[in-house]
Amino acid sequence: MDFILRLGAIASALGAAATMATSDETLPFFTQFFQFEASYDSFSTFQFFVIAMAFVGGYLVLSLPFSIVTIIRPHAAGPRLFLIILDTVFMTLATSSGAAAAAIVYMAHNGNQDANWLAICNQFGDFCQQISGAVVASFVAVVLLVLLIVMSAVALPNH
Amino acid sequence: MDFILRLGAIASALGAAATMATSDETLPFFTQFFQFEASYDSFSTFQFFVIAMAFVGGYLVLSLPFSIVTIIRPHAAGPRLFLIILDTVFMTLATSSGAAAAAIVYMAHNGNQDANWLAICNQFGDFCQQISGAVVASFVAVVLLVLLIVMSAVALPNH
Repeated sequence: MDFILRLGAIASALGAAATMATSDETLPFFTQFFQFEASYDSFSTFQFFVIAMAFVGGYLVLSLPFSIVTIIRPHAAGPRLFLIILDTVFMTLATSSGAAAAAIVYMAHNGNQDANWLAICNQFGDFCQQISGAVVASFVAVVLLVLLIVMSAVALPNH
Repeated sequence: MDFILRLGAIASALGAAATMATSDETLPFFTQFFQFEASYDSFSTFQFFVIAMAFVGGYLVLSLPFSIVTIIRPHAAGPRLFLIILDTVFMTLATSSGAAAAAIVYMAHNGNQDANWLAICNQFGDFCQQISGAVVASFVAVVLLVLLIVMSAVALPNH
């Protein structure tokens, strides 16, 4: 069960990173000096998102051997504790990048009148869909990580 | 130790909520129809921040009796496990609201050229200082919560 949840979390974390990293839209009209283009690297929040999600995905791949060890030797508290602590750290990383990206995506969809920031999703529709999808995938990864931590914590004192 | 960390986390969570909730700046000039004003409730991200931080502070106050129980009875695994699970949930809540607010604060400071969002901190200096302080306080609360979870997880298998 731990192993399957981890595989799901890997898929959603790497999917989020890939979706965000490939988001790029160039508008078909341009002026003499300027072509309108939106891509993830024009927002530093989205750059952080891609890096953080790649880190989380990489950590989860590396954690698979430890997960197998806890399945083979359910009485060993050491690897399980190791996984809980690192899971918590990377869950925080995934949550912060996902929430920061969600705040910017919300701004892109709705804008803010008081700050005079206009919604850009009217112009960059495909871009907005891709970044929204990436945020949803990151939240799936966060939920799976929370389940992993709670399950490991419940399994600990029985042994 | 657990108790002291919890008191620190309460102070920073409630401090973050209060600082954000009182952030409000009205510019001294106005046109006939419009007065320029920035307050936390013009950004839905900051509203979420205030609500989430108040929830986290309230939860931490309610968790103090359980923390005392784990100090008096260090061999009881039940209350400690209960605290780990709820701490994880509220840590995720605090992290997401803090990171989302940080993304908007970054936008307010630097703006974004590609989306044509201008930095508003030139006009609303005091407002920006207050929201930045609230974000810092929320990150202190998150760090204290991570320490609490790791400490509880380390203390679990010894008993």
